[in-house]
Amino acid sequence: MRIAIDGMGGDRAPGVIVEGAVAAAREFGEDIIIVGDEYSIGLELKKYKPSPSNITVKHAPTVVEMHEAATASIRRKKDSSINVGVELMKKGEADAFISAGNTGAVVCSAVFNLGLLPGIERPGIAVVFPTLFGFSLLIDVGANINPTSEHLLQYAVMGDSYSKYILNKPNPTVGLLNVGAEETKGTDFVKQSRSLLKESGLNFIGNVEGRDIFTGKTDVIVCDGFVGNVVLKVSESLADAIKTLLKNELTKSKITKFGAFLSKSAFKALAKETDYSEYGGAPLLGLNGRCFISHGRSSAKAIKNAIRVAAEFMSHRINEHITEGIKRYSAERKE
Amino acid sequence: MRIAIDGMGGDRAPGVIVEGAVAAAREFGEDIIIVGDEYSIGLELKKYKPSPSNITVKHAPTVVEMHEAATASIRRKKDSSINVGVELMKKGEADAFISAGNTGAVVCSAVFNLGLLPGIERPGIAVVFPTLFGFSLLIDVGANINPTSEHLLQYAVMGDSYSKYILNKPNPTVGLLNVGAEETKGTDFVKQSRSLLKESGLNFIGNVEGRDIFTGKTDVIVCDGFVGNVVLKVSESLADAIKTLLKNELTKSKITKFGAFLSKSAFKALAKETDYSEYGGAPLLGLNGRCFISHGRSSAKAIKNAIRVAAEFMSHRINEHITEGIKRYSAERKE
Repeated sequence: MRIAIDGMGGDRAPGVIVEGAVAAAREFGEDIIIVGDEYSIGLELKKYKPSPSNITVKHAPTVVEMHEAATASIRRKKDSSINVGVELMKKGEADAFISAGNTGAVVCSAVFNLGLLPGIERPGIAVVFPTLFGFSLLIDVGANINPTSEHLLQYAVMGDSYSKYILNKPNPTVGLLNVGAEETKGTDFVKQSRSLLKESGLNFIGNVEGRDIFTGKTDVIVCDGFVGNVVLKVSESLADAIKTLLKNELTKSKITKFGAFLSKSAFKALAKETDYSEYGGAPLLGLNGRCFISHGRSSAKAIKNAIRVAAEFMSHRINEHITEGIKRYSAERKE
Repeated sequence: MRIAIDGMGGDRAPGVIVEGAVAAAREFGEDIIIVGDEYSIGLELKKYKPSPSNITVKHAPTVVEMHEAATASIRRKKDSSINVGVELMKKGEADAFISAGNTGAVVCSAVFNLGLLPGIERPGIAVVFPTLFGFSLLIDVGANINPTSEHLLQYAVMGDSYSKYILNKPNPTVGLLNVGAEETKGTDFVKQSRSLLKESGLNFIGNVEGRDIFTGKTDVIVCDGFVGNVVLKVSESLADAIKTLLKNELTKSKITKFGAFLSKSAFKALAKETDYSEYGGAPLLGLNGRCFISHGRSSAKAIKNAIRVAAEFMSHRINEHITEGIKRYSAERKE
């Protein structure tokens, strides 16, 4: 497999990207193409001796910055690392593309260049996150902030396939994010989505509330991209805030510091248990291709794992499963 | 002041409600009317000797259960503790009403019986929550899941008044919850709300993202009730999940247990810093009256503080400030 990665995307690019790519090249043996400024990527690569022979660099002279409009990738900056990377897939020179850069620009370039799978009207970004009982999947977290109920149904089908084959859940449960568990609750949009999901043949368990997300009540949670984006960012920053406050308190006295030292292994275990970098890249599902969005703050480990997940996505033929799923559920609904 | 409280609402009613009411009656000296089943409230009251003379009981034979429809309070169960409590205010026999019961039923009964302030089209539930730097206010967290941009503007004005006089912030900043900081981001609804807020004369700082909520970037965050409800519930459950996971890890070995024991004061300080019970009741703002919604899991301390906040709401004449605010900002917009 040939996996392209945006060498310029993310807070600590290209250093961390190259580090993760080298680790993946050594561990998984995939062919990796790092896309971006040849010179600075080359400098980073030189740090690794011997530099893995299964890594190549594809030059792209510009970068879509984080504050730029999503359309920059397909208008002013067609020669950006994002657009050049996506085009590699279009030309059949890469099987997947990963970027920790401007999410909107990745979505825009990917949809424009690759198009969508049959039966899919909008792509969705799916994020795997830790719960009290293993990992769950939230879709969509921001590709589509104004979806229809049909889009939500498509997200559910896509989330089902991803959960089955990447998260190894044979019959994933699907929940619809709402303000209450009862059928009468929610906006018209949510109620309509609920009816569609109920008839879909998926393992739909009904509405789930914000409080159910981290208990692991359901394997797949479907929501519009506005709410999903807010949920993702709130959760991340709340976890960070709790960490910061706890650290401040723990370092206030010598006794609490010593206590924290003794409890170190517990904190480490917790960090590991809740380590989202295990699934380092969020797939842009529904795409006629394979694109993964990594966190801007990704570590080298997260990048390495994103490459692993991209390879699994390919070998488990997720897109074919999605296409079959869409066909099957549409057929069932027509019966 | 005469403050009515729903004796039957909440997971541990009437015990915890009576306990909080007794503490408030002793500490603040307000007249408190506990509404609900006379017999069971009486049994609880007997536990306190001497039972404070400024507590009376108003009998209400039924209870709106948590799973019941919001309209139950004004249809089948007009004699419920919620509706009887709200009616006390309508008849001028109470100045405020607090309930830890069915939120929808409280909103429904309050709007039906008391109506709204001039210029307010929908009430909003405002929640005070801890951040890295003090407390902030989120409005709306579920009274209105399908608001217009005008409603959001009204929420901003109400949040501004509440922040000024209850949270003691002289010139509170107001942010609009969105998926990105840039003006171009968000749904049409959010963009339109942004324009209204920009012209409002409020101390509006623009869009804020999910990640800004817990950093305390802004004093008031305005959003639709669907998103707000999800944010509130996600945050609560994530904080609980982290606590649970950490506790599990800390109790796994004798060393980590001992470490946790030494660090106890840090955990306690953190718990205190993030103790939402300090502002025990979420006001239903915009109401031509004073209603407060307490968490179903409220402790006696939270109930006591809700009574304190209700009294402050009254003495700081929040409703008059809201009415003035609405007039002022409407006038400024017309100029």
